[in-house]
Amino acid sequence: MSEIGKPFKVALIQMRCVEDAEANLVNAKTRLIDAADRGADIACLPELFRSPYFCRVEDPSLFDLAEPIPGPTSRAIGAIARQTGLVVVAPIFERRAAGLYHNSAVVIDRTGSIVGLYRKMHIPDDPLYYEKYYFTPGDLGFQSFRTEPANVGVMICWDQWYPEGARITALMGSHILFYPTAIGWHPSEKAEFGAAQLDAWTTVQRGHAIANGVYVAAVNRIGHEGSAQGGLEFWGRSFVADPFGRVIAQASTDAEETLIVACDPRLQEETRRNWPFLRDRRIDAFAPVAKRFLDDPERNPR
Amino acid sequence: MSEIGKPFKVALIQMRCVEDAEANLVNAKTRLIDAADRGADIACLPELFRSPYFCRVEDPSLFDLAEPIPGPTSRAIGAIARQTGLVVVAPIFERRAAGLYHNSAVVIDRTGSIVGLYRKMHIPDDPLYYEKYYFTPGDLGFQSFRTEPANVGVMICWDQWYPEGARITALMGSHILFYPTAIGWHPSEKAEFGAAQLDAWTTVQRGHAIANGVYVAAVNRIGHEGSAQGGLEFWGRSFVADPFGRVIAQASTDAEETLIVACDPRLQEETRRNWPFLRDRRIDAFAPVAKRFLDDPERNPR
Repeated sequence: MSEIGKPFKVALIQMRCVEDAEANLVNAKTRLIDAADRGADIACLPELFRSPYFCRVEDPSLFDLAEPIPGPTSRAIGAIARQTGLVVVAPIFERRAAGLYHNSAVVIDRTGSIVGLYRKMHIPDDPLYYEKYYFTPGDLGFQSFRTEPANVGVMICWDQWYPEGARITALMGSHILFYPTAIGWHPSEKAEFGAAQLDAWTTVQRGHAIANGVYVAAVNRIGHEGSAQGGLEFWGRSFVADPFGRVIAQASTDAEETLIVACDPRLQEETRRNWPFLRDRRIDAFAPVAKRFLDDPERNPR
Repeated sequence: MSEIGKPFKVALIQMRCVEDAEANLVNAKTRLIDAADRGADIACLPELFRSPYFCRVEDPSLFDLAEPIPGPTSRAIGAIARQTGLVVVAPIFERRAAGLYHNSAVVIDRTGSIVGLYRKMHIPDDPLYYEKYYFTPGDLGFQSFRTEPANVGVMICWDQWYPEGARITALMGSHILFYPTAIGWHPSEKAEFGAAQLDAWTTVQRGHAIANGVYVAAVNRIGHEGSAQGGLEFWGRSFVADPFGRVIAQASTDAEETLIVACDPRLQEETRRNWPFLRDRRIDAFAPVAKRFLDDPERNPR
């Protein structure tokens, strides 16, 4: 951890995810090869990229979409990683055992080997995002993985609202936190709340970048899935924030595109030197973070 | 904690702080009376409002600026609180004992009594912000105080970069987090970094509002203090973010002004119902937040 790393380039693959799982894999492979051609060192695919966002309904037959790790997707992406020399963050709907599934991501290195596995820790459950039905919360904790180009932290979607996950993953030495994501608007809410929702999503993650002095990359899908009024419009807007929270690249809301973004650990070093937040953390006073709530009817009674 | 609170109005008193400690008190009193006249329930003054930001130099004679709590400032503000019916968050340079000083804030209720004391937990030390020379880090932990209008969390300035403090204070049932502040630009850096610094400061605090579903109010001073090139230009820009992170009021960079801002616990309730982050926190996995760093040379060796 003591040496400053070398510059590296990341690829954020913002794509549409269709019914045909094989078509999604072909699309991902094509975009990975393109990313490598454009100089990327590390690429990240969107959450659950092999399928539409199936959590819009609760249907036991949809567990058929899951697969083991290692399995077909990790092997296919591993072959591309080996071919291109890319490190790849590849989200997978993981079948761990009968009746036990996770929303996971593997990190595959340039040799095609699995470097690590992350299982989504925070599982949402809201109208049209019925994830608690499908996914057991992760049991591997927060994780950062050493790869040749950089130390890669990985979390998934709903995790991005939790400063604790970002903090722990950053403290493991991450140069960058990747958040593969599937987030979008309810068409009926978009006019009233859409702009504020997108802004909150961007802002909280920029906050993680600032508080931790770390690059943050959010990789979302695009496209409308489901019925015109009852479905979801995934809002794209994949972005990278630098360690000072500046958005240095951001994709559109509605187009498939791959952002290639240069990152430099020296900027992380400089940022943390100038505003040295890590120096002063009151770790003696942080234990209450691990409490559900701090209700105390005796506190300051009146 | 189980009942939804009533709407309340806060006053953010953005002021200039001059050499004359009495003049600063008179200014604060005048502005507090004005805030009450304009309907405020809770008012917050800037960090160390009784003096210029003396931490620009290390000088033992400056400890003469400190005072006990209770002491002259808490009594003077208490009298105004009683007179106006305001709850006041009043920062004080606290002399606790010979050689033991804190950067503190008292919360004074409508009767003029001290409801609580917060001592700044995170102490910065950077060129022209030599706070570690003056202030012992707080030993009271993070705190939220029940007052009649609302539950008031208080932190101070450098604390605002730490998601842990915001989280703990929010989990104590705060409706709003106040951050009395003294932050500004180094004139020599302003052209290159000024906009990014101000934006990072605003963004990280908006992030606390979003992650916790809580109002956040930052109260800064204005004015240039010190030599033209060697001093500090305090950037004002006091603001309130709502529980969704939207900036609902923001002051200028260079004028004394009091923002009066309406807050509604029902919006906090609605925001947390719609994006229920508190429901899903992985408290079983947050213990590493209380570590300095998570270096592990054996992790994922290569």
